[in-house]
Amino acid sequence: MGRVTVRRPVVRLTPNGQRRRPDSLAAEEPLELRVDGKALAVTMRTPGHDVELAHGFLLTEGVVGDREDIATARYCDSVDDSGKNTYNVLDIALAEGVPPPDTGVERNFYTTSSCGVCGKAALDAVKLKSRFSPAQDPVRISPTVLTTLPDALREAQRVFESTGGLHAAGLFRADGTTLVVREDIGRHNAVDKVMGWALLQGLVPLTGTVLLVSGRASFELVQKATMAGVPVLAAVSAPSSLAVELAVESGMTLVGFLRGEEMNVYSGLERLVEYSTSP
Amino acid sequence: MGRVTVRRPVVRLTPNGQRRRPDSLAAEEPLELRVDGKALAVTMRTPGHDVELAHGFLLTEGVVGDREDIATARYCDSVDDSGKNTYNVLDIALAEGVPPPDTGVERNFYTTSSCGVCGKAALDAVKLKSRFSPAQDPVRISPTVLTTLPDALREAQRVFESTGGLHAAGLFRADGTTLVVREDIGRHNAVDKVMGWALLQGLVPLTGTVLLVSGRASFELVQKATMAGVPVLAAVSAPSSLAVELAVESGMTLVGFLRGEEMNVYSGLERLVEYSTSP
Repeated sequence: MGRVTVRRPVVRLTPNGQRRRPDSLAAEEPLELRVDGKALAVTMRTPGHDVELAHGFLLTEGVVGDREDIATARYCDSVDDSGKNTYNVLDIALAEGVPPPDTGVERNFYTTSSCGVCGKAALDAVKLKSRFSPAQDPVRISPTVLTTLPDALREAQRVFESTGGLHAAGLFRADGTTLVVREDIGRHNAVDKVMGWALLQGLVPLTGTVLLVSGRASFELVQKATMAGVPVLAAVSAPSSLAVELAVESGMTLVGFLRGEEMNVYSGLERLVEYSTSP
Repeated sequence: MGRVTVRRPVVRLTPNGQRRRPDSLAAEEPLELRVDGKALAVTMRTPGHDVELAHGFLLTEGVVGDREDIATARYCDSVDDSGKNTYNVLDIALAEGVPPPDTGVERNFYTTSSCGVCGKAALDAVKLKSRFSPAQDPVRISPTVLTTLPDALREAQRVFESTGGLHAAGLFRADGTTLVVREDIGRHNAVDKVMGWALLQGLVPLTGTVLLVSGRASFELVQKATMAGVPVLAAVSAPSSLAVELAVESGMTLVGFLRGEEMNVYSGLERLVEYSTSP
């Protein structure tokens, strides 16, 4: 776990001259995920919480729906030049009876048998794979509570302060209580780590929760939230067109540009109660 | 090309009440890349400049090194429910004698025959694939010129202004002249579109140029710059540890936190001349 940041010398250049000083960089390393010994995916990630990352990835890809679906997760004995384990290959054994995932290019995707690839097909693919639906979740949340979450996320992000290079995702209860915050060099990985944590805690489907991401809300982030049954997704920055379409389709509340006391609501406005002076 | 942004209604929520208004969202659609009819990758991208995206992807993956390596690029006749072409499947025909790419999971990656996946292996894989090397590029650039580039990028980013949801990549000459700016919902795609433009212009290897990206510098962005022979990569935000390692290994100048009049230099300081009052 000492690899979340890496120290390196850097030259700070200003019109007043240059200064050499040590700098903290966000660590980035490849992680290969295997399922029952077979390579499924390689992702560039910040080391740490790899088992959570693997659980979250398999959950949000629709391979598993419960922690019981995974029998074991163990690092392969991959070694680097100096003979040390790199901890960069993780092998997941699925429980008996859990069908293994496809490993082809079309794995995540939206190709029909013909030449049809489009946004609509992407939405349909999520519907087909999803075990849970946020649509029926009756949770209500106060906008006042939502406006406190970015600060809570930042406070939990100690690493971010020192590197400026990590994305964060946080899971909260509707009353604003923090459940977990994870960081990663990749946006998707930060969310997968959160989802994997939740799966390991037995909290999936994530009824009554809010997922907050530090950046933008893309289709894939809404997909991951949908696959875990999250009813409210909030982003500090903008959503994409297809992210909004999927949120509408899934019955999820999607909030963007959550900054200061204001926000944009793209779908599921009915879950947001009136602003109040006390949360 | 009308699909770069999409209009949607949004509810703006503030302590003073709510207001419904139209909003501009960055368009996101899946694009399937095929090579000689065989699916190679699916990426979520902002429609537009797809042929450039495909060229840049194949260049930075090491499949092609010259525009002559690609015979044709054409959209498949994929249709949506209403029978309209989705323009989301692009088939690339390689020129005779150009070997087709691998399509397995390990395509981009760093797996050796044993269980070894690590940062070092990732660096080696780039070295193995790269046709060009920025290491010998004698270009010199003024920090003063560098500090003007983020504004030039933003000025060229008209779409960004209206959506806040797009990443940008810009290619400049060492004197600060803008060659091309491209945007996309995905960071990698914005860079691929720039690289594909350069390949189609016959400008690769990109001797004497600067690539600027609007966000962070990850390993994969440095990899793409290396594969195209770019000697200077600048990022508005932080680089990752492995991005810096690859820049050092490739002999590339890597600048981060390029903001206002200041910047961090992580490698290749020798290409930066003294600050001067005139560019």
